[in-house]
Amino acid sequence: MQPVQRLLTPGPLTTSIHVRQAMMRDWGSRNDDFIALNQSILDQLVSLVEGEDEFVCVPMQGSGTFAVEAMLGTLVPRDGKLLVLVNGAYGSRMVRMAERMGRPTLRLEDPEDRPNDVARLDEVLETDSTISHVAIVYCETTSGILNPLDQVARTVARHGRALLIDAMSAFGALPLDARSTPFAAVAASANKCLEGVPGVGFVLVRRDMLAASEGNCHSLALDLHDQHKALATNGQWRFTPPTHVLAAFAAALALHQEEGGVAGRYRRYAENCRIILEGMRRLGFEPLLEVPLQAPIIITFKMPGDPSFDFKSFYDRLASRGFVIYPGKLTQQPSFRIGCIGALGAADMADALEAVEIGDG
Amino acid sequence: MQPVQRLLTPGPLTTSIHVRQAMMRDWGSRNDDFIALNQSILDQLVSLVEGEDEFVCVPMQGSGTFAVEAMLGTLVPRDGKLLVLVNGAYGSRMVRMAERMGRPTLRLEDPEDRPNDVARLDEVLETDSTISHVAIVYCETTSGILNPLDQVARTVARHGRALLIDAMSAFGALPLDARSTPFAAVAASANKCLEGVPGVGFVLVRRDMLAASEGNCHSLALDLHDQHKALATNGQWRFTPPTHVLAAFAAALALHQEEGGVAGRYRRYAENCRIILEGMRRLGFEPLLEVPLQAPIIITFKMPGDPSFDFKSFYDRLASRGFVIYPGKLTQQPSFRIGCIGALGAADMADALEAVEIGDG
Repeated sequence: MQPVQRLLTPGPLTTSIHVRQAMMRDWGSRNDDFIALNQSILDQLVSLVEGEDEFVCVPMQGSGTFAVEAMLGTLVPRDGKLLVLVNGAYGSRMVRMAERMGRPTLRLEDPEDRPNDVARLDEVLETDSTISHVAIVYCETTSGILNPLDQVARTVARHGRALLIDAMSAFGALPLDARSTPFAAVAASANKCLEGVPGVGFVLVRRDMLAASEGNCHSLALDLHDQHKALATNGQWRFTPPTHVLAAFAAALALHQEEGGVAGRYRRYAENCRIILEGMRRLGFEPLLEVPLQAPIIITFKMPGDPSFDFKSFYDRLASRGFVIYPGKLTQQPSFRIGCIGALGAADMADALEAVEIGDG
Repeated sequence: MQPVQRLLTPGPLTTSIHVRQAMMRDWGSRNDDFIALNQSILDQLVSLVEGEDEFVCVPMQGSGTFAVEAMLGTLVPRDGKLLVLVNGAYGSRMVRMAERMGRPTLRLEDPEDRPNDVARLDEVLETDSTISHVAIVYCETTSGILNPLDQVARTVARHGRALLIDAMSAFGALPLDARSTPFAAVAASANKCLEGVPGVGFVLVRRDMLAASEGNCHSLALDLHDQHKALATNGQWRFTPPTHVLAAFAAALALHQEEGGVAGRYRRYAENCRIILEGMRRLGFEPLLEVPLQAPIIITFKMPGDPSFDFKSFYDRLASRGFVIYPGKLTQQPSFRIGCIGALGAADMADALEAVEIGDG
């Protein structure tokens, strides 16, 4: 069944019919069957980063931003100091969060089309011994840029600081292995590369760091320590979980595994990305990023210089053919974005290119 | 179609098949059709309290607790002082939230089977002029008790303070009219008497109070002022909304209106409550509350004194017959709870009583 709309966005994205059908049942959130469903989700998420024994998964109601704020608020102590690597809106958002909760915060900023500068990070950590935590955005959805997570992680570890990762639009499709990449915690959501529906996020966090975080959090609802404590006691959430969203998430994780896990999902997205990049180039559109910086998640195209090109009518024309794209989020130059993620494949990408090509003629 | 389980709980509760079917479509959250759906939800919620012109509805991702924390954090300024009326777990939770966010907080406590003491509230407000806000739980789900909202509201207004209402398990079934009951804001959720699915809450707040609240909130994600500002600008949420949960909420509100709005919903729940109370009394169970204090939302029964009564096997027996009830939440004496809310009617209540009566014989 072709969906009403195919969403070529960084989320909410197109989901499988199997994921949506999983929402057709009501669950009592304190019942054994729901507790088992919930636990299987948490266990699978830990496995995705090979985090067994060392890591625990704490789910969080709300959008991915709620999980990121919960991660920063719970893990950066009140006398800690956070350095945020910024090259887009999501890095900036972490700075705003940390400032709002009163944590001393520094930003190390690069332009939106350049990856985080590892050499400068090394210098800053060398100079400022009061920085306790470093935060990075794995794939910055603002531009679609891939940041140098491994190099950053090794640098942060060498200086003995803790790394917090916003992997929202990367988790489940881009590699992240706790055995080879040192990090303290990673936040992500059900509704990106894992292809669930929006409404729940999660943080994978080192057990020892979570245990040491009691009383840190500025918020009751967003306190990962308390959230985990309740779940560890009897398997029940402190506050009503989004039961239907979680049932959909379990179905989405089953499909993820069927597809071959992270490697399988990556292959499909990389192929989607290749088709869109090549096709759009052929049609005269220019991507913002150089190829090695482009993650196969979302592609930013420069707005065509041709004054006859009107983005609103381009957007509406695609929408009338059932495709939803995204306006740019860049502050520096006009752009628009096409996502490669969601339950869509090569045939959908070809259809999208056809819709772009046919135009409104 | 009879659901797999009938949930006699205060939520997550049993929903209509129409509500769940509304989740079978994916929505782009920045698309015009989703923006219109979302706006219609907000408009209907304002109408439910006759709040046109004076009130605005700000939705909030997460469980009802997230909406309550957002209400307290956004509306009580950092130099404000909050008095919380406590006669159960949800009142206590508001105290913990306010303390966590560093607001000076007082509690005025009554036993769990007694309503808030209005005379003492009057005295305290007379004595302590530094109290800026008072918080009340309309129906305390801990016991199911109905608190004297109207008297409290008039008392608070007479002293010129602002009233914040946690109406989580009351909104949509118990009366609340902004034209006759003075209050500053009320928080509730999609998944109680409005019979949506869990994953989103909302706060109805006076426009002037919200406008004056900029910069108050301790949290970026839970900031109602910022959340409203984005929605007012272009109809879009700041952070990914739970699109499927909102589509379900729109369907649930349509059913609420079809049933005759608040009055219609109240009638069905009151009848459910009457059937359960009478039937359980006949079977030898004793309710905790005196009749005039009992809201038709959830009924607390005292645990039978008979030493042969084992709650776990009672619970499991009902579960094996497809009914989910709740353990007690009271700290003072052993109890259990049976909910009257959700997409269930007189026939379901009769079936539940039959399941209780038949026992495991």
